Amino acid sequence: MIRIGIDANGGDLGVNATVPGAMRAVSLYKDIEIVLFGDEDKIKPLLTNSERITIKDTKVTMDMGEHDPINAVRKKKDSSLCMAMYAAKNGEVDAVVTSGPTQCVVMAAHLIVRRLPQMDRVALCPIIPNYDGNPRLVLDVGANVELKKEHYGEFAIFATIAAKEVLGIKDPKVGLLNIGSEPGKGREIEKETYEYLKTLPNINFYGNVEPNEVINCPTNIVVCDGFAGNICIKTLEGTAKGMGEMLKDEIKSSLGGKIGYLFMRKNMKRFKKRMDSKEVGGAMIFGIGKPVVKAHGNSDGYAFSSAITQVYKMVKADLINKVLASLPAKEAAKNE
Amino acid sequence: MIRIGIDANGGDLGVNATVPGAMRAVSLYKDIEIVLFGDEDKIKPLLTNSERITIKDTKVTMDMGEHDPINAVRKKKDSSLCMAMYAAKNGEVDAVVTSGPTQCVVMAAHLIVRRLPQMDRVALCPIIPNYDGNPRLVLDVGANVELKKEHYGEFAIFATIAAKEVLGIKDPKVGLLNIGSEPGKGREIEKETYEYLKTLPNINFYGNVEPNEVINCPTNIVVCDGFAGNICIKTLEGTAKGMGEMLKDEIKSSLGGKIGYLFMRKNMKRFKKRMDSKEVGGAMIFGIGKPVVKAHGNSDGYAFSSAITQVYKMVKADLINKVLASLPAKEAAKNE
Repeated sequence: MIRIGIDANGGDLGVNATVPGAMRAVSLYKDIEIVLFGDEDKIKPLLTNSERITIKDTKVTMDMGEHDPINAVRKKKDSSLCMAMYAAKNGEVDAVVTSGPTQCVVMAAHLIVRRLPQMDRVALCPIIPNYDGNPRLVLDVGANVELKKEHYGEFAIFATIAAKEVLGIKDPKVGLLNIGSEPGKGREIEKETYEYLKTLPNINFYGNVEPNEVINCPTNIVVCDGFAGNICIKTLEGTAKGMGEMLKDEIKSSLGGKIGYLFMRKNMKRFKKRMDSKEVGGAMIFGIGKPVVKAHGNSDGYAFSSAITQVYKMVKADLINKVLASLPAKEAAKNE
Repeated sequence: MIRIGIDANGGDLGVNATVPGAMRAVSLYKDIEIVLFGDEDKIKPLLTNSERITIKDTKVTMDMGEHDPINAVRKKKDSSLCMAMYAAKNGEVDAVVTSGPTQCVVMAAHLIVRRLPQMDRVALCPIIPNYDGNPRLVLDVGANVELKKEHYGEFAIFATIAAKEVLGIKDPKVGLLNIGSEPGKGREIEKETYEYLKTLPNINFYGNVEPNEVINCPTNIVVCDGFAGNICIKTLEGTAKGMGEMLKDEIKSSLGGKIGYLFMRKNMKRFKKRMDSKEVGGAMIFGIGKPVVKAHGNSDGYAFSSAITQVYKMVKADLINKVLASLPAKEAAKNE
């Protein structure tokens, strides 16, 4: 049995997303057991099928607007988020899924579940939709504003194994997010990292990936620091959303547009679906002792169940142990 | 008369874009004189109206794939790009427009026309389309991979005056590109810069702008270093293009889509136009002794004429002198 802890109070929709998501996941996978950490009074009326689902009651929630994540994680030990993390730490569950506030999730994973001894940094790794329909891994997108080249290396190795085991990609290619395609482009750190990644034996390094290629990406994985990565994926999200709105405006602006829409409704829905993060699960947190997936804050039940599927695959593939076997010993990585 | 030097050989389309662009510009503005630096044999057949247009012959072109911009600028002094820059330096023209390779343009402006004494850095400042139809200035997007806080300040002041004089915005708001909206977000440089920009008397500082807001931007100006800015605008461009392609794919994929398109063709064209860089001119190069505009490499005649219009407004507004009057003396800026 794969036991998954859910931060049931988390996210914009709280139990209205997490409870249906949990029920969908247990119906999809017969070897899942779920523990819902959250408000029992709110969960029970929604839990129409409690097979392989238990509840650990807590009314405390990590607010989406927490300004001081470290402090919040230390003080709100009885929050649904922290309780799920403690359960992971203590081996009561094998993994955690939450749609709580990103920085609190990263901090709680860090402070409670703890980093793997062979990883110096933790990375936030979303799966992003792509033109060709095949998702890509981009990391880090927000856990570290600055990195050393060895950290990019750790992330590249971790993501390579995750891409193989979770996404089923055979020999995943790794790219370095950079402002030019040739070697020698970017800041000092990109120049150094380019040379360093070339030397790593257990990744398939492609070279630089330019930001305009990320939506139609020549690699399966893109590594970057959390500052550059955050700018890239937030710009991508914002542009996709803004363009969707513009398209809606234009279609609504005339009768021709409205009639045309009736004919191409299905096409438009497929178009929307191609860029929809609901289909692809959440962001994985790499570098932690247990698989943790952070679903989108605005996840509905379907999106939340996709995130559960993702963490289920991570546990099933024994991802953490496979990564541990591939990472260089910490001493070697710290040589420079 | 406002005299504008054109790198006529530059860009993907060369004279096929620059010559029609120049003819359109002289027909729009009666006080423009244009000097076309380029291949006379190719220009003459296209120049159906040579009123206020002269040619300075050169067959040499700065290739789009130049790998060593500094070297290229030093060696190819007789290229159409460098000749236009020398003419600006020597006061034969008041400004330069080119759609040549970005890094060569920045280097040629830097090495030939030279920096303003009060500017420590040069910035590449494109005008980017926005959801509300009002263009925004984003700088730097590629001239400097790293900056000090005073450089952000110089750029903010320069862009404020340009937004007033060229775009006609009354009291332009300045934002700092950052990975969170609150103060204290980002790397050390963003934290420092946030505090520094707050103290500048001659800009209207708004605070942080998140990358997902850039397409629907709460400020008129966004300042950033060339690495972050390049990632942001290239992601924006790539996503807009990728989504356009996806939409085309989906529409073409069925009869319903094709019929629907017939009804909403006009709407779709307006949609496309809203994100089209052809409408908004090129990237301005700030910090140089003369106005220089770098048009998109793939500019056609219409786009190129928009870039000429833009540089024309910069000269007409006496932008450089207004900036010089607003910038702090160099000693003050270098205090830290």
